[in-house]
Amino acid sequence: MRLTLSRDTKLCMSLSGRPSNFGTRLHNHLYQALGLDYVYKAFTTTDLPAAIGGVRALGVRGCAVSMPFKEACIPLLDQLTPSAARLQSVNTIVNMDGRLVAYNTDYIAVAALLKSHGVPPGTPFVLRGSGGMGRAVAAALVDHGLGKGTLVARNAASGRAVADLHGLRWQPELPEKAPGAVLVNVTPLGMAGAPESETQAFPDALIAAAAWVFDVVALPSETPLVRAARRLGRPVITGEEVMVLQAVEQFALYTGVRPDAARVAEAAAFARAG
Amino acid sequence: MRLTLSRDTKLCMSLSGRPSNFGTRLHNHLYQALGLDYVYKAFTTTDLPAAIGGVRALGVRGCAVSMPFKEACIPLLDQLTPSAARLQSVNTIVNMDGRLVAYNTDYIAVAALLKSHGVPPGTPFVLRGSGGMGRAVAAALVDHGLGKGTLVARNAASGRAVADLHGLRWQPELPEKAPGAVLVNVTPLGMAGAPESETQAFPDALIAAAAWVFDVVALPSETPLVRAARRLGRPVITGEEVMVLQAVEQFALYTGVRPDAARVAEAAAFARAG
Repeated sequence: MRLTLSRDTKLCMSLSGRPSNFGTRLHNHLYQALGLDYVYKAFTTTDLPAAIGGVRALGVRGCAVSMPFKEACIPLLDQLTPSAARLQSVNTIVNMDGRLVAYNTDYIAVAALLKSHGVPPGTPFVLRGSGGMGRAVAAALVDHGLGKGTLVARNAASGRAVADLHGLRWQPELPEKAPGAVLVNVTPLGMAGAPESETQAFPDALIAAAAWVFDVVALPSETPLVRAARRLGRPVITGEEVMVLQAVEQFALYTGVRPDAARVAEAAAFARAG
Repeated sequence: MRLTLSRDTKLCMSLSGRPSNFGTRLHNHLYQALGLDYVYKAFTTTDLPAAIGGVRALGVRGCAVSMPFKEACIPLLDQLTPSAARLQSVNTIVNMDGRLVAYNTDYIAVAALLKSHGVPPGTPFVLRGSGGMGRAVAAALVDHGLGKGTLVARNAASGRAVADLHGLRWQPELPEKAPGAVLVNVTPLGMAGAPESETQAFPDALIAAAAWVFDVVALPSETPLVRAARRLGRPVITGEEVMVLQAVEQFALYTGVRPDAARVAEAAAFARAG
């Protein structure tokens, strides 16, 4: 398929401190597979207000927002939908004829995955980490109606802050036992390129007794934690599922088209290869 | 050839009140033919300062500027090179790491065509029209060292202003005779879609005695004036040559690559077909 752009082709984009190739490859692959007259490109900037002003003035249709711009962009936008307002964190901007409307598709994706995997409300959970993505996950877990939540974070200040916000109990170290809980990792443990890329975020003993294991680390898709959970026969929700589903949510918001699972899997495989 | 964009792909663009498809198709065709990691798209805007701010903040590599933004953009830019300073009119912005440098490739293209067609300095000329493109053409004619210049324009105010600026003689009607002159049309006479699309900008009598006939109307490429000149055996410079050459100048400024004539002809044919 050849991509022939015209004056009518719609631009979608991303803004982040350190752009990856995933979004650019995923969205463009889906545009071409589905015959949609769109083009997508990742950008970075040192002037966020001017960049967002450009999105509005040029009629850029959609803009993904990543670290470190997720909170800083809020005063520059026109409307926060519930997902973004809930978190006070934006990862998606949709340009409605010059009106910039904000979403958080990380939250939307996590909420959807808890539902599609059939995680029952009332299940207790242990959330390890309190960083950027942790907020979206904590809010989605709580809003899904999960039971008693424990937040594990070495940093007392941010740990207590996130725990208080969501009504969780904070502790600095992992519990010894958490039978029947959903174990959720939102730290960089196990992430490719991180210092602790080989570290398994929860020990085997906790995993073996867990109801679900949920790792938001997306690269690699098979983290040490995910591999251990599979080895111990526990149901898994992967960071890759979150990454792909949140991108599909963005795709649907920008284009009005929701690609089917086979298309998405094919596009995600293409995106990962770049 | 498949266009695979990445985070490193450079964006070039245009800003105009009514975008055409020519630039988008021409530049993208050349990028793909030459294997350059660029993508091009036409935009319009109702907020020029924010649009130019976006060009700077997003690191857009190059931006073509058309009516009605050619003068209005000047205070928003960082540097005017001689072609733009000469005319106080910009049609090309190059982003040098956040520094926006302005050119006028219409002027550059007209000057280059007078040279490549071998129009001798000292040749008198009759310029019909005093609108936007007229300024670039008048300046290039004068700077090429052409001789006695006559500006024909029904509007006395703008006609006298352009004539005074360039040391030409203004008159409201065509002269009866202009032997050995270059006849230049910068009005919309003969332009596709214009009310006078069938009108021949100079009569046969003047054409038959002319040294050159130069029409800046680019669409269609064979205007009534160009057709008459060919019929009467006079040498011709067409608006299509200007349109293509000024775009090639932009292409070279943005990419550092100057495509050869065969590539350009192929890309121009592709661009016209869309």
